[in-house]
Amino acid sequence: MSQHLILNAFLMNNGHHEASWRLPETDVTAYREVAHYQHLAQVAERGTMDSVFFADSPSLFGTNLERRPTEALEPALLLSAMAVATQRIGLIATSSTTYEEPYNLARTFASLDAISHGRAGWNVVTTADLNAGANFGHEVAPTHAERYSRAEEFLEVVLGLWGGWADDATIADKASGVFHDSSRVEVLDHVGEHFRVRGPLNVARSEQGHPVIVQAGSSVPGMALAARYAEAVFTAQPSIEDGRSFYAELKAATRRAGRNPDHLKVLPGLVPILGSTEAEARALEQQLDDLVVLDHPLAQLAGDIGIPASEIDLDAPLPTDVRPVEEIQGNRARYELTLALARREQLTVRQLLLRLGSGRGHRAFTGTPEQVADDIELWASTGAADGFNIMPAVLPSGLETFVDHVVPLLRRRGLFREDYEGTTLREHYGLPVPTAGRPLEATA
Amino acid sequence: MSQHLILNAFLMNNGHHEASWRLPETDVTAYREVAHYQHLAQVAERGTMDSVFFADSPSLFGTNLERRPTEALEPALLLSAMAVATQRIGLIATSSTTYEEPYNLARTFASLDAISHGRAGWNVVTTADLNAGANFGHEVAPTHAERYSRAEEFLEVVLGLWGGWADDATIADKASGVFHDSSRVEVLDHVGEHFRVRGPLNVARSEQGHPVIVQAGSSVPGMALAARYAEAVFTAQPSIEDGRSFYAELKAATRRAGRNPDHLKVLPGLVPILGSTEAEARALEQQLDDLVVLDHPLAQLAGDIGIPASEIDLDAPLPTDVRPVEEIQGNRARYELTLALARREQLTVRQLLLRLGSGRGHRAFTGTPEQVADDIELWASTGAADGFNIMPAVLPSGLETFVDHVVPLLRRRGLFREDYEGTTLREHYGLPVPTAGRPLEATA
Repeated sequence: MSQHLILNAFLMNNGHHEASWRLPETDVTAYREVAHYQHLAQVAERGTMDSVFFADSPSLFGTNLERRPTEALEPALLLSAMAVATQRIGLIATSSTTYEEPYNLARTFASLDAISHGRAGWNVVTTADLNAGANFGHEVAPTHAERYSRAEEFLEVVLGLWGGWADDATIADKASGVFHDSSRVEVLDHVGEHFRVRGPLNVARSEQGHPVIVQAGSSVPGMALAARYAEAVFTAQPSIEDGRSFYAELKAATRRAGRNPDHLKVLPGLVPILGSTEAEARALEQQLDDLVVLDHPLAQLAGDIGIPASEIDLDAPLPTDVRPVEEIQGNRARYELTLALARREQLTVRQLLLRLGSGRGHRAFTGTPEQVADDIELWASTGAADGFNIMPAVLPSGLETFVDHVVPLLRRRGLFREDYEGTTLREHYGLPVPTAGRPLEATA
Repeated sequence: MSQHLILNAFLMNNGHHEASWRLPETDVTAYREVAHYQHLAQVAERGTMDSVFFADSPSLFGTNLERRPTEALEPALLLSAMAVATQRIGLIATSSTTYEEPYNLARTFASLDAISHGRAGWNVVTTADLNAGANFGHEVAPTHAERYSRAEEFLEVVLGLWGGWADDATIADKASGVFHDSSRVEVLDHVGEHFRVRGPLNVARSEQGHPVIVQAGSSVPGMALAARYAEAVFTAQPSIEDGRSFYAELKAATRRAGRNPDHLKVLPGLVPILGSTEAEARALEQQLDDLVVLDHPLAQLAGDIGIPASEIDLDAPLPTDVRPVEEIQGNRARYELTLALARREQLTVRQLLLRLGSGRGHRAFTGTPEQVADDIELWASTGAADGFNIMPAVLPSGLETFVDHVVPLLRRRGLFREDYEGTTLREHYGLPVPTAGRPLEATA
């Protein structure tokens, strides 16, 4: 663990648990209300958390339309409205390199960085889902290799555009009538396999240079990309042993890529389900699990493993003859995780589906604030994490409870800040400000 | 003029006048501050104006980099932050059909519409500028015809995606565990010449159905597109005669397209330069014009007319042997306007450049609030306009003066609302809520 713990609030409409919207306390219309997200950002900021974060995909998540809110307002627009309701908290959105144009994406995130005075981060993903591809003229999803080849070039273009403005490019001298010094704004002239982009970008650099680069793929090419470019990695790690080995491997790869491993933060997801007593926490977990309808998740699992839903016994272990990992073109890391989880913990299919439904493959921890703080401390102090993506099962209550009951414990133990020391996301994360200039210099 | 006057505040960093940033009063850093735009939206809302509006292009406006602020924060992000600082005012952004993906654009504007509870509008443009094309892999700008063919199909896809969600698609019934009724969310399955988009969109309809469709091209194909799809047209009309003939022509074309001409609002641009007395207004105009440096505008004009800058005499009329209109692939309507303006008013090149610099080809009116109100009333009451895009020469002062001194006069004359009657942009404009469903039904 470097400097201090990093804690992001990973937001998801009414909460990460599949059935969170069915709780009596939940306002089912809140997921479409910008005020809901502004409130969440303010709560996270009250807890001096590092950032709020949105996942994203440019499609309707088709299979589960009937079982949970599936609309997804454009995350950068939400973050812009959240930026003006807060002062310090970082603002990270996911955006795909597969179905966007690098110029538009670079501009959107640079704009968010300007609006928030240096609090933006971009979670770089590739999109395998054919539900998304079909919205962009694709009939066949690009292969894993194609997606990562495009993603790498996409990143170089975006970093190049962001680095095109020198910090002294804007003069704004009323007397001479010179606004920008055009010799300090560089044309990119990128010509590559996937893109041809001239630039310059029409947005200059921010107080933190450019948005923080986050990466969320934990497959082999995902880790290779992270080692070269990412400043933070969001990852699903089911056990502390998995966490330690992932952490060590990624830090080593970062060192091999010629970078300071402290400049890449490893942040596993954690779904805390909290109660004043352990029994109270377990009761909340049970209440949520009882509200899950298993038809859609079962259909999805059946599709993944390649066995008809009708042939799967919910109360038996996962069949052994499932589809091999190598045949998966989509989210391979997640599929591996699902299989490993089922095997290691000897779960029945029902138990497995409930576990996936509670945090989409991320590790859930049910207990008291003290127990959650212990868990966080253990991971962070034994080389398994630089911090966590906190994924509240229910929103806003799960985030409020975390901020009001877990954060004070972490502060008391000297693991977490009492107040923000800087104003930018890079300052919160303890990352250097990249110099303006060519792509690879930017993160080296 | 239908129902009542429509007044939009067309915003542009420090103001529409080329030299507005050089005035002693101007804060030269404001154009990058979201608080500046939030303030402008609040001023416009104080004046019960219909909307705030941003022009846009996905490029750095290269030639004038040294002479004025040329950065452009992403307008939808700015509008999202402005939405949460206001309650009623409409929020319109320009976005190009030439270099965007329809799914992403439909989602961005639907999200803004959700965030603002039905106050969004999309100004549909095509982008001719090769400075933009070069940021998206284009070495040759698409022709006028290609751009409009793509724009029309783009519009059909966007309207189709917006219409895919029935208003009763979201049930959110905690007891049964059904969130969305998937039978009420339609797949689009668009297959056309330019796009293949399956849908559905991941954002449902808003309080106003979908964003208002605005169109800003006044060329022949631009008008044809407007007659079929647009609910408001932003246009540059240099004289009241031009305005009347454009108005009559477009309303007739709208009728011929089978639509109610009251459902397309014609809104010319107007750059008011105001003073308590006419002399004071003229002095402000002179002060601004004296601050314009003519080198870049002259180079731009030289490029347009096809005559080297060194051969142009600033104090003589425009040469007669300029490039013919038919050879222009870019903004043809604007080029025609420039030539017509120079000829009709027998301007010297210097005068022409100053006029263009004061509002980029739109009509400037210098005078007292009373005189501006007279001018607006004359246009609106004699079939030249349904309202105006007010383009303050200097911001925020020009908008504040307009709201505090012109709006009260228009109210006193019964031409403008005393308060908002509705909450959505469609209600402000007096437009019907489109039914959910297939593209052409949506605006017919």
